[in-house]
Amino acid sequence: MRKDYIRPLDIRNGRVDMSHGAGGRASAQLIEELFQAALSNEWLAQGNDGAAFTLPPCEPGARLVMATDAHVVSPLFFPGGDLGSLAVHGTINDVAMCGARPLYLSASFILEEGFPLAELKRVVDSMAAASRAAGVPVITGDTKVVEQGKGDGVFISTTGIGLVPAGVDVSGANARPGDVVLLSGTIGDHGVAVLSRRESLEFETTIESDSAALHGLVADMLAAVPGGVRVLRDPTRGGLATTLNEIARQSGAGMLLDEAAIPVKPQVDAACELLGLDPLYVANEGKLVAVCAPEAAEAVLAAMHDHPLGRQAARIGVVVEDAHRFVQMDTRFGGRRVVDWLSGEQLPRIC
Amino acid sequence: MRKDYIRPLDIRNGRVDMSHGAGGRASAQLIEELFQAALSNEWLAQGNDGAAFTLPPCEPGARLVMATDAHVVSPLFFPGGDLGSLAVHGTINDVAMCGARPLYLSASFILEEGFPLAELKRVVDSMAAASRAAGVPVITGDTKVVEQGKGDGVFISTTGIGLVPAGVDVSGANARPGDVVLLSGTIGDHGVAVLSRRESLEFETTIESDSAALHGLVADMLAAVPGGVRVLRDPTRGGLATTLNEIARQSGAGMLLDEAAIPVKPQVDAACELLGLDPLYVANEGKLVAVCAPEAAEAVLAAMHDHPLGRQAARIGVVVEDAHRFVQMDTRFGGRRVVDWLSGEQLPRIC
Repeated sequence: MRKDYIRPLDIRNGRVDMSHGAGGRASAQLIEELFQAALSNEWLAQGNDGAAFTLPPCEPGARLVMATDAHVVSPLFFPGGDLGSLAVHGTINDVAMCGARPLYLSASFILEEGFPLAELKRVVDSMAAASRAAGVPVITGDTKVVEQGKGDGVFISTTGIGLVPAGVDVSGANARPGDVVLLSGTIGDHGVAVLSRRESLEFETTIESDSAALHGLVADMLAAVPGGVRVLRDPTRGGLATTLNEIARQSGAGMLLDEAAIPVKPQVDAACELLGLDPLYVANEGKLVAVCAPEAAEAVLAAMHDHPLGRQAARIGVVVEDAHRFVQMDTRFGGRRVVDWLSGEQLPRIC
Repeated sequence: MRKDYIRPLDIRNGRVDMSHGAGGRASAQLIEELFQAALSNEWLAQGNDGAAFTLPPCEPGARLVMATDAHVVSPLFFPGGDLGSLAVHGTINDVAMCGARPLYLSASFILEEGFPLAELKRVVDSMAAASRAAGVPVITGDTKVVEQGKGDGVFISTTGIGLVPAGVDVSGANARPGDVVLLSGTIGDHGVAVLSRRESLEFETTIESDSAALHGLVADMLAAVPGGVRVLRDPTRGGLATTLNEIARQSGAGMLLDEAAIPVKPQVDAACELLGLDPLYVANEGKLVAVCAPEAAEAVLAAMHDHPLGRQAARIGVVVEDAHRFVQMDTRFGGRRVVDWLSGEQLPRIC
């Protein structure tokens, strides 16, 4: 581009217009002055239709993992995070839940005409910061623009790839009766944080999203007892209850939980009560569930406690034989109930 | 999921609702009965947060490529293709333009509440057919739902990964003065096909999109003269003119084109005249530009002519020294003019 012919992008006062998505000069300028300026790295600098990279040296038997997520959270900014950081954390976590070390991300943006460039910059800067903090660069991307009223500010789809070391076999299908179910911390924080901002609710203390990249925690857990972790999953949409039902279904087993062992922050509990939500079904963005071999559970739990994102990790239940693949829970009141899948929509556009 | 408890998805009459994006039972059902049923493969069947795969055996020096695209074409269905096939072809082509053999795709869907499930099925079936025909499976995905009026039917972001064989070095930065510019066929077909459907224009003959996966053509071209192809790029948004300007800019060289050598179908030419469009700026989805070493150009062109997607390939110009990196063109009328970047929006939502 012959820079002297054009004015710099007016990020402070400008807005996304259709020409930013048309592939011509305005698109190139937006990519250069906003996206590349924030996400800057050697792969984006290649400037081609995709980014080329080499894999780190790996033993025979290593596999790759690919995971993708569309992020449509509303509002875009909420206590503890925003669309940009969420898009990075969410996909890093999906890769990590396959037992992989996340290596690279791609990001595709669907922008609504009229969206303020200043807000877009906030989202992209946050994405860049999250990506740098996690050590997982965004190496390629795409931007499209849709007319006003055909989108909602900005949607981001991120895809991640990662490397599963030889010998690691983590899958939702691997839970066996007798295994121990671990949870890395409190549930419901993300969903309540987003909802309270959406509904402009004020609580005594601000509830922050737990949005975080979990790959460091996962690496420590896998290293603690080789082969000891059989299942990893992050309880996002649908919450802990739905995630456990997914694992039960995939593994062909049941689960028995202990309600008293499931950590919930008092303010989240109170907010859920007020909002008519069950924390078991509220989304998390920085928590994971692990199913471990019984003999490994203690050491894996200790490794979790040693990591900043697993300080409040707890043993919350066991895998049991059950042809119906029910998730059941011993309640605080001494009863036992079935914890079913989320049916219907508890919280739309939460991630 | 306990299937006996729920009714099958009513694909014929049903519509997307918010619960399909909430991550619970309805989401699982949509994924299983619509997405997995169409795209069915061993990787999707893993049922985890991402898909694990092994790379084909490759020599030292091989690199991977990752490319991503958001697809927001409007209307969703047009002569010669639809959003589903376009999302597959577009990303396969971006991977192929890096000199890579495309291996796997991911797909993330953003659905608008109220969108008919029957239309969604048409899009996903088309995606599955395009993916099968190209031999590049969709191995993982995600689905989100936004409220009516916050989206536009369906948007698809696809990401592809591929393998660049050792010794292949294709980049927009590699063009050198003296190199030959090849074009694989007629320009403007896709943009005119989409626009004519959007505006409900009737021409004497239906103009069809050229949407196609170009990786087979690329493989033949790379094999024809090892090291002979220096740049590959598909002239999508912004058209041939913008793509050549991108290459000129990246390579720090100019180009001189021969207008008479650039193939345009007579009906596309006529439609462009009617619509006030310049075919040089109209999007293509099944064409590529190659910059070749002068001594390799003849053999690469012959390989293109031997492939069904390169029958009308032509030598359209040369790379020249030019500190201004101008793309110039000798016109049919004997003059010479600068072919600039697209500025503004010629055709919004064309891909």
